[in-house]
Amino acid sequence: MPELRKDPVIGRWVIIATERARRPGNFIDTFDTTADVGEPKCWFCHNRRKLIVPESPQGIRVVASNGDIFGEKKRFHRVRKGLYEVIDGVGAHEIIIESKEHIANLVELDPALVEDVIKTYAARMKALGEDGRYQYVVAYKNYGPTAGGRRISHTRSHIVATPVMPIKVHEKLEGAQIYYQQHKRCIYCDLIAQEIKDKARVVCESDHYVAIIPFAARFLFEVWVFPKAHHCDFSDGVGGSESDLAELLKTLLRKFQKGLNDAAYNFVVQTAPYPLKSDAPDKWATLKQDYHWHLEITPRLTRLAGFEKGTGFYICAIPPEAMAEYLRGIH
Amino acid sequence: MPELRKDPVIGRWVIIATERARRPGNFIDTFDTTADVGEPKCWFCHNRRKLIVPESPQGIRVVASNGDIFGEKKRFHRVRKGLYEVIDGVGAHEIIIESKEHIANLVELDPALVEDVIKTYAARMKALGEDGRYQYVVAYKNYGPTAGGRRISHTRSHIVATPVMPIKVHEKLEGAQIYYQQHKRCIYCDLIAQEIKDKARVVCESDHYVAIIPFAARFLFEVWVFPKAHHCDFSDGVGGSESDLAELLKTLLRKFQKGLNDAAYNFVVQTAPYPLKSDAPDKWATLKQDYHWHLEITPRLTRLAGFEKGTGFYICAIPPEAMAEYLRGIH
Repeated sequence: MPELRKDPVIGRWVIIATERARRPGNFIDTFDTTADVGEPKCWFCHNRRKLIVPESPQGIRVVASNGDIFGEKKRFHRVRKGLYEVIDGVGAHEIIIESKEHIANLVELDPALVEDVIKTYAARMKALGEDGRYQYVVAYKNYGPTAGGRRISHTRSHIVATPVMPIKVHEKLEGAQIYYQQHKRCIYCDLIAQEIKDKARVVCESDHYVAIIPFAARFLFEVWVFPKAHHCDFSDGVGGSESDLAELLKTLLRKFQKGLNDAAYNFVVQTAPYPLKSDAPDKWATLKQDYHWHLEITPRLTRLAGFEKGTGFYICAIPPEAMAEYLRGIH
Repeated sequence: MPELRKDPVIGRWVIIATERARRPGNFIDTFDTTADVGEPKCWFCHNRRKLIVPESPQGIRVVASNGDIFGEKKRFHRVRKGLYEVIDGVGAHEIIIESKEHIANLVELDPALVEDVIKTYAARMKALGEDGRYQYVVAYKNYGPTAGGRRISHTRSHIVATPVMPIKVHEKLEGAQIYYQQHKRCIYCDLIAQEIKDKARVVCESDHYVAIIPFAARFLFEVWVFPKAHHCDFSDGVGGSESDLAELLKTLLRKFQKGLNDAAYNFVVQTAPYPLKSDAPDKWATLKQDYHWHLEITPRLTRLAGFEKGTGFYICAIPPEAMAEYLRGIH
């Protein structure tokens, strides 16, 4: 049974995937960057798993992951082992198969299909929230083998719901809350206003969205996409502007494909946690005012060394303003 | 001039290395895992830079990095740009060339030489603290190309001092402080006692040190080395037990070399920040009681995907207890 374990010092939760435990001698992930298994052997072209919701009119299918890291448990129990805390289960992991065809990159999909992918994210995030056992849900995508996409290059996304709050989400919620307490304004709204006025780090913009290279970028060509309207929650906030976001995403990923040599990338939806079901005081009671959902897209162009891993200090070899200018020029 | 930039939401500082800015088309780090430039062309075999301190009796040399990411500035200025904070300089970066011979892995060095490396860390960390401009210092090592060691495989370490606190160090200090406030004990001392009693995650042990796989390990075969005696600061705390640590380190790295197929690894010294020189109230006033220096060693066996990067949630495919058992069996 896989379990969640908490670091007692910093509170970071880790998934210990005992079920897919490997034997000694089988530790090293090999990333075969050339081979794709091809359509005849593709698990996603020929999915035989039970669909979680009916196939969408566009042909999008949602299935449960094969459960290698997420066990199936009715209830999760917290156990203490001296200093340590453990939860005897992990959560839900669903896979969104975005196309019936064996297409690798979301950028090749029809705009209507990308819009449908976004709607599917929203619907699944909402549905998993109603389950009541989860505190957080994340939607993400790995494109390309170096981004963790492995050998089957069939375009797909992941939805993962967990009974605990991920540490990076906690950091963002806390930072936004402190700013709100001081200024009575959403820090992301202020940031968006400053970026749109400044223009130097804006990559592209639509009616409802803006894509920027962050001022303190960690990775080469890291891009954050913000909705201009304030909303903490992706599944509510994206409603009505899905086609606008789909188009902006396609524009952006096309720039990556053309300008960054079809770089591998990761893509994560940063949204608010689920509301607490208990009567306990809610630490995030003001998140509707102070948090602002967004997307983080990071091409995989550099590897981290000891300095970054040990300190959380990143070195960015190109100024964000130069990166934004370069991407603006790619069409 | 390179600069430090702060993320306004979570407070993470990033080094924007404008001086080694690359041009478009030159983004992708290629990690040539086979080629070593070889002794005749090795910059470290034929160092012509000025030594920062006299060469040690064992032949260890300390030189300044070539300054590509760290400018030379007498004073650092903090500037605000709307929401953002910038420091117009970065800090010090020194390289410790650990051998006169063209040897790749610290594990091949004489025990006396490894002991001397440890003494050099301590001496340089102390000396940089006296500079007065720095808040934190980190000593680290990258072994192997996938760990960021690049093409020159001459054994060396890095010492980096910065005027700001790295976010991961802040997290640890804060976690340890909260525990101390509640229990009036050092959390690391409690953790070490529990691990030594439990034995399941201990990899090896000496008179003064213990090496464990952390309970909530993020990476395959991640190892933490703790001094059994309580001390927050590496450069003071290691005094007198350098040869013991050198031997334990060699034992451990030999296990990596033999049992993990000579895996690339990163190695970071986690120590206390420098004491504040100002009269301002010191947030870390209790760190002598509540913090405990340690080493983190992480082999590079897996790549992170979108889930880990976006959430800080790691998936560890082998139980820590099984990893420790495996390493215990490698001699």
